[in-house]
Amino acid sequence: MVIETDAAAAAGATPAFVTEHAAEIVAAASRIAGHVRRTPVLPAEEIAPGVAVKPEMLQPTGSFKVRGAFNAALSLLASSPDARGVITVSSGNHGQAVALAARSLGLACTVVMPEGSNPLKVAAVRALGATVVSEGVTGANREERARELQERTGLAMIHPFDAWDTIHGQGTIGLELLDDVADLGVVVCPVGGGGLISGCAIAVKAARPDVRVIGVEPELAADAAASAQSGRHERLEAAPATIADGLRSMSIGDRGFEVIVQRRLVDEVVTVTEAEIEQAMLAVWTRLHLVVEPSGAVGVAALLAGRIPPPAAGSRLAVVLSGGNVDPALSARLLAAHAARLATGGSAL
Amino acid sequence: MVIETDAAAAAGATPAFVTEHAAEIVAAASRIAGHVRRTPVLPAEEIAPGVAVKPEMLQPTGSFKVRGAFNAALSLLASSPDARGVITVSSGNHGQAVALAARSLGLACTVVMPEGSNPLKVAAVRALGATVVSEGVTGANREERARELQERTGLAMIHPFDAWDTIHGQGTIGLELLDDVADLGVVVCPVGGGGLISGCAIAVKAARPDVRVIGVEPELAADAAASAQSGRHERLEAAPATIADGLRSMSIGDRGFEVIVQRRLVDEVVTVTEAEIEQAMLAVWTRLHLVVEPSGAVGVAALLAGRIPPPAAGSRLAVVLSGGNVDPALSARLLAAHAARLATGGSAL
Repeated sequence: MVIETDAAAAAGATPAFVTEHAAEIVAAASRIAGHVRRTPVLPAEEIAPGVAVKPEMLQPTGSFKVRGAFNAALSLLASSPDARGVITVSSGNHGQAVALAARSLGLACTVVMPEGSNPLKVAAVRALGATVVSEGVTGANREERARELQERTGLAMIHPFDAWDTIHGQGTIGLELLDDVADLGVVVCPVGGGGLISGCAIAVKAARPDVRVIGVEPELAADAAASAQSGRHERLEAAPATIADGLRSMSIGDRGFEVIVQRRLVDEVVTVTEAEIEQAMLAVWTRLHLVVEPSGAVGVAALLAGRIPPPAAGSRLAVVLSGGNVDPALSARLLAAHAARLATGGSAL
Repeated sequence: MVIETDAAAAAGATPAFVTEHAAEIVAAASRIAGHVRRTPVLPAEEIAPGVAVKPEMLQPTGSFKVRGAFNAALSLLASSPDARGVITVSSGNHGQAVALAARSLGLACTVVMPEGSNPLKVAAVRALGATVVSEGVTGANREERARELQERTGLAMIHPFDAWDTIHGQGTIGLELLDDVADLGVVVCPVGGGGLISGCAIAVKAARPDVRVIGVEPELAADAAASAQSGRHERLEAAPATIADGLRSMSIGDRGFEVIVQRRLVDEVVTVTEAEIEQAMLAVWTRLHLVVEPSGAVGVAALLAGRIPPPAAGSRLAVVLSGGNVDPALSARLLAAHAARLATGGSAL
């Protein structure tokens, strides 16, 4: 028996790091069930043969972020039943998700958002009962301001991506894909701060090391691709101007770096152009009838651009559509341009 | 024992008409499984408490019409294995659905579409391998032209709504709602030719006569509401100009009239304005992140306009979102107007 165990280890048995974090993801799944939705897996042959999508825009608040937010808030309450509340830094989907989790669980919530944040997003966070702190907050000092506030108030930080509770929550998507996609061969995820893909990669590789996990990021924000190539933790020099506002972080987190680069649980990171992202948003709108935001469309963009090899015959490729909170002005612009192309004889998408 | 049976009949036991057609709907469900999708039921608390939606835009070709089309084509092949092909009349979703069914089953397909039909829709039908006949076809003579062609060619007619095979296929939505919605109290369906709501009403009332079935049609095309009120088969005098292009039929079919009006299997038909339909489309896009076409949005329009009483406490209301094939120019216009309202301080939807 001992010999067999040694042989398994020598043959590349799953490392303890993966099995331990995968167990935490399984625990997160039971913790958050009843608070977040188990999104369906939808066939998406209209995109390419063998493709399915995981439509996380169908979650409360319109993105996958509720998974990590609820896991972190519920874990906090389990370990500190007297916790006063939570604090986070986000100008987007994570802020809304944490505000919803806090409201549902009776916790106070503060969201630090830079001055000049999209007023719609500020209003959405406030509508969920959270306090927004913006005065004197900039993109550069926001993490520092949040730390100061956290120390002063005793609120617990729920980091958008660089915290294990958050990553374990996001990883529940990987568990659901394993359950719901027969013959899963490839999983494609957007990469911003790296929380989503790290959780999914751990969940998937723990059970099925043969499944390929591929990350996609905008060419304008290609720090993860650069890190994967150099093996170092690369950081952008300035905030990237990509349309994909959920993927503008200047580098992946330390935990994401460990999962993606050091432990090589992500097989490849590919990039897409801004035009490819726009084209993918329209394709998801017109072919799948789902509203996807730019960050959520990068996986489909990579597929349509031929940047991801098709799955082997008999195996399926699942793309995570991470969210649907798109600025109506942007949707209007893309659809008007599409309608104009069609009116002048351009081809349908 | 005999006395009990009599008592049950006196107390209003389900009439044979309902049980017989309901059995056909159950048969249709097994017939079409594997050809159409079992769409999920999605919670839609973002629209109103206790509401769920059946998102039929997630079907192949983007509408519920594949259910009836596949049921009719498969029934044809079962009874006439040598059938040459099928013919239909449609300028919209039904044409695409019949073309897909025919192509999948190796049947020839002709779709009669009036001259001047939306070229995108003509192209979509042709892309599915069907022959489009338009020369000399008008809205007024199209049924007659199709009958002539049918007699000459021997193709089998698949009527968009006034045929039992079609109605039984659409009714599979009702079966799925019974299975998937715990505590179902109300079902809300669009009404055009009446095929969808007739099938759903039969399926639902056969099992649960207590569930209310409510139809919704545009105020500009309110022939079903008029028929329900007068008890006669009312017909519009001219083609209605509603934005809901799938609900422009000038009257419900004879079979729909029997189900909806004569047998009273639909509890109520309510109407919505054009502005309410546009508002509902935006609400479905921005709150549910689903792309809905005008005809598919009338149920949500009625709910948001307060035209349907909320479900009783502890019971749920399911709205059928019948399709998602919306003209990109229309989507662009609605979203641009919405973005402009938001930019001037208007409230989010």
